Amino acid sequence: MSSEQLPVTDRTRLRRLHARGAHDRATIDAILDAMPLCHVGYVRDGKPVVTPTLQWREGDRVYWHGSSASRALRAADGTDVCLTVSILDGLVLARSAFHHSVNYRSVMIFGRATAVDDPAEKVARMRTFVEGLYLGRWDGLRPLTDQEVKATTVLSMPIDEASAKIRTGGPVDDDADYALPIWAGVVPVTLILGAPEADPRNLSEVAEPPHVSSVEIG
Amino acid sequence: MSSEQLPVTDRTRLRRLHARGAHDRATIDAILDAMPLCHVGYVRDGKPVVTPTLQWREGDRVYWHGSSASRALRAADGTDVCLTVSILDGLVLARSAFHHSVNYRSVMIFGRATAVDDPAEKVARMRTFVEGLYLGRWDGLRPLTDQEVKATTVLSMPIDEASAKIRTGGPVDDDADYALPIWAGVVPVTLILGAPEADPRNLSEVAEPPHVSSVEIG
Repeated sequence: MSSEQLPVTDRTRLRRLHARGAHDRATIDAILDAMPLCHVGYVRDGKPVVTPTLQWREGDRVYWHGSSASRALRAADGTDVCLTVSILDGLVLARSAFHHSVNYRSVMIFGRATAVDDPAEKVARMRTFVEGLYLGRWDGLRPLTDQEVKATTVLSMPIDEASAKIRTGGPVDDDADYALPIWAGVVPVTLILGAPEADPRNLSEVAEPPHVSSVEIG
Repeated sequence: MSSEQLPVTDRTRLRRLHARGAHDRATIDAILDAMPLCHVGYVRDGKPVVTPTLQWREGDRVYWHGSSASRALRAADGTDVCLTVSILDGLVLARSAFHHSVNYRSVMIFGRATAVDDPAEKVARMRTFVEGLYLGRWDGLRPLTDQEVKATTVLSMPIDEASAKIRTGGPVDDDADYALPIWAGVVPVTLILGAPEADPRNLSEVAEPPHVSSVEIG
């Protein structure tokens, strides 16, 4: 019996073995913590705008930032946004075009963006951002100036109305199609961090700190 | 003289050496063709929704698709959308938190989504999608059924109001900060495709076709 002939609920259940939604914070947090790249959606003059930027999580909130010179970013304060993080894990090749798919982990968070106004709190949030990527780097950096803090807009929203979606595993074909002589399978996709490239202007006595080669994303 | 002391326009010019915007189609098309993963923004009930999906280009239009069971996708027909493609190319570590950055290639396309209604045209567009990723795969697949074509919603928009943004190269620090004993540089980020994993249910005589290991993304 082909899965296409199954009642829709059974077919849906079959697909769910490979693609599942989740609302638990452990799953959501793991995806947010794995991938700083995110896409934030705003509504501007009634139209959608999707901006790539980096996000970081601190407890029950997600943060992102940008230049205070960006009118769009400042305008987002107090408005509805959708922040989406997606990690591509594989290409799934099936026996029919219809069942081709991808393996992935994604999170969508809906909510109202709030700007972090207090300069000291802004600095604290930026510290978490830098330390989350490069553990131990912050204290060795030239400190942020008041002007730089002013020039940075930090936005945040609660991880409240959030959901994760994950697909793993191989293709799920219609039963009859398994008899066809067609190659099916998965091509895994991974983000690789290459060997660090030192700035030619680094002082000669400066060694590469451990946090540079221990970064993990994806 | 520190770059922070330069007039704002000069500092902006300095940054533009590393991050530049582009509106030429060659640059835009190269990014779209390199990365199928995209994020499409819609406005639903006045709020933004950002959905990860795969896009493909055919001439002067960009396409994406999904299940016709998705009310959100069907509702997008005729509405304003923003489709964004982003490729992360590197982490840029500077001497101050303020000048940390990432290298990336991104494209934003604004426009009105239109559904492809004609079944034959839908199949032709799906063929381009599959062949774009896996050259030579389409003709060997079990053909799409009428029911599958009906169950697939294909949306498209012109690559018209589009722009690309690219950052490359190392950190750009304030002049005075180059004297500090801080490691700065770039950690390159690359998408790697792993060895194809054959479905255990492939027929024993089925060999891996060339298009499986020649896929290129990123």
